[in-house]
Amino acid sequence: MVRALELGARGPAHGPNPRVGCVLLAPRPRPLDSLPDGAAPGPVDASPRAVLAEGFHRGAGTAHAEAAALADARGRGVDVRGATAVVTLEPCDHTGRTGPCTQALLDAGVTEVVYAVADPDPVARGGGERLRRAGVRVAAGLREAEGEALLGPWLVAVRRGSPYVTLKLASTLDGRVAAPDGTSQWITGPAAREHAHRVRAQVDAIVVGTGTVVADDPSLTARTGDVAGPGPGLAEHQPVRVVVGLRDLPPHVRLAPAGAWTSDGGGPVLHLRTRDVHAVLADLAAREVRHVLVEGGPDLATAFLAAGVVDEVHAYLAPVLLGAGRGAVGDLGVTTLADAPRLVTHDVRRLGEDVLVVARTAPGSLRPTHRTTPEQEK
Amino acid sequence: MVRALELGARGPAHGPNPRVGCVLLAPRPRPLDSLPDGAAPGPVDASPRAVLAEGFHRGAGTAHAEAAALADARGRGVDVRGATAVVTLEPCDHTGRTGPCTQALLDAGVTEVVYAVADPDPVARGGGERLRRAGVRVAAGLREAEGEALLGPWLVAVRRGSPYVTLKLASTLDGRVAAPDGTSQWITGPAAREHAHRVRAQVDAIVVGTGTVVADDPSLTARTGDVAGPGPGLAEHQPVRVVVGLRDLPPHVRLAPAGAWTSDGGGPVLHLRTRDVHAVLADLAAREVRHVLVEGGPDLATAFLAAGVVDEVHAYLAPVLLGAGRGAVGDLGVTTLADAPRLVTHDVRRLGEDVLVVARTAPGSLRPTHRTTPEQEK
Repeated sequence: MVRALELGARGPAHGPNPRVGCVLLAPRPRPLDSLPDGAAPGPVDASPRAVLAEGFHRGAGTAHAEAAALADARGRGVDVRGATAVVTLEPCDHTGRTGPCTQALLDAGVTEVVYAVADPDPVARGGGERLRRAGVRVAAGLREAEGEALLGPWLVAVRRGSPYVTLKLASTLDGRVAAPDGTSQWITGPAAREHAHRVRAQVDAIVVGTGTVVADDPSLTARTGDVAGPGPGLAEHQPVRVVVGLRDLPPHVRLAPAGAWTSDGGGPVLHLRTRDVHAVLADLAAREVRHVLVEGGPDLATAFLAAGVVDEVHAYLAPVLLGAGRGAVGDLGVTTLADAPRLVTHDVRRLGEDVLVVARTAPGSLRPTHRTTPEQEK
Repeated sequence: MVRALELGARGPAHGPNPRVGCVLLAPRPRPLDSLPDGAAPGPVDASPRAVLAEGFHRGAGTAHAEAAALADARGRGVDVRGATAVVTLEPCDHTGRTGPCTQALLDAGVTEVVYAVADPDPVARGGGERLRRAGVRVAAGLREAEGEALLGPWLVAVRRGSPYVTLKLASTLDGRVAAPDGTSQWITGPAAREHAHRVRAQVDAIVVGTGTVVADDPSLTARTGDVAGPGPGLAEHQPVRVVVGLRDLPPHVRLAPAGAWTSDGGGPVLHLRTRDVHAVLADLAAREVRHVLVEGGPDLATAFLAAGVVDEVHAYLAPVLLGAGRGAVGDLGVTTLADAPRLVTHDVRRLGEDVLVVARTAPGSLRPTHRTTPEQEK
């Protein structure tokens, strides 16, 4: 399973499909009839068996990890009848862009399947049960936590039916995103901006408000190298660029219908004419967007926070004190400290002179609560 | 010198006197007449000689490091005639609470002195020259950077004639120090508060405004252990507690003239009836205060920042977003980003769920500049 997790991590973090790895192991020397069906094999798994083939999923439209491993076996001329498939996610039981992995495993004669995480997809789930009914020995939950970590935002998004939302904030140490005259470039330095571009290349969509498009005329491409310098390269994956708001975009901006975006090598541009955060997420979920990066401005950040839909905050903080100017976050309706959404610090790192704080929330915990009176608390 | 630096670090970081260590080495096998006077002995120093005695300074009123090392030698019955004194700071040439180290070294028959950092004190300086005139071989500047690091804020304060100022800010990720209803306890968690108390125990004075005293009724003691729990211990060193502002303090607060402070085991309380930051620092400098910790509130923080006298910022950031409420820093008169004071990040660390950013400034760089027009810039 460790090897399967390693293989899975080679796949892309973005895209509608999960990162999955699969290893096909040689048949057991003799059948282990004593192993209770459905239980993780535990110590049995520790006895090393020969690896017949392996595979991982390279993104939507390509072979699933199981199919890739079976193809690898065919390529090597290896017989996988009686083999064990060790896979990080429950094999799918659904014909989408590719056929169901359950059937492929059965057709190949695999007789045992071990997986880490149950498939949360309402359409594709149930593969384990299907295999079990077909006589395959199935064990679930091996290294489940590591499997969930590999799946990351995808797992949250598919379980919930709504994209994982990462909110990017870039501010001074005292929480300002612009000086009183509106100047805001550059608060953070090159290392922070490079990191932000690496994050862009891992998400499915970037969301900004119409106000940001008008004020900053961003390109919202994912770039590599010195992102502020001349001629930075484009990352291989470009997220969908989503503009949210009722306003028409002025014709001269990059993201306007006939703007520079049509030929700049970035992702498609989508203008969602709504101010309803939930409508935005529902639209993106229908487009199989799993991970959304909300980049600004403060009004949009505030709307997402107030709606309680933010899963993760990336706060880039520059060692600058402004004392005045626009704050990173607007009024959330929180009046007393006890009601303020409290996040869980996940990672703290220095990026050049700047600091990145990655903080996460349990589902719903970013939704401001209403204060209860002592009587209500009893 | 490495050993002398280690010894010096055993002394207290607070107090009017510097941290200094001294090692007395056995006489050289033969005189090194080829060594140019005034030059760091470099490779010569690398030849190991026996350590005869050592000492360090334990704080004002106790023996200086050189005197402590000479006393150590006497206690061991060791003859130090012809010895080399390796000391982290130039020996003083001044009778203060103790006699001049120069004379003590000469009286003991020491014939060579090596030191790291020249004494910046206008009263005590000149010891090297005095020794040289008396026929002692003197070398300066060995491991000078490490010597300066050991001296820390003391060196800045004495060179400048004004205390080193550390500004403490404790805020949410979006720079708020209180919710709209004024609630502010506790934004940061226990680990951050413990760290803040350790800093208190290393400074000479804590400064707060009268507004903070009235609003929060702080004790401003330096405590150890679980600072929020019952009965935390008092740190050995307690800084002077300085209240700045024109208002009389209400009689019921801890820091009032007849308040609890008179028996709480904390440092003396001083009420400076001024709003002039420079007057505050001049008063404290005259009291031999070398390191001041400015703790709040936002008005006082803003006044110190606007006056350009802050050397170091300790920003404790909690993973909370408030969106409204009082900001950590008030208006500094900065209108455009290019004029904002930019600090240099010195340290970033996680403290429980919170983050501490320590950022420093070159002298004067925290003073907001006035924007020049392109014509003025030419």
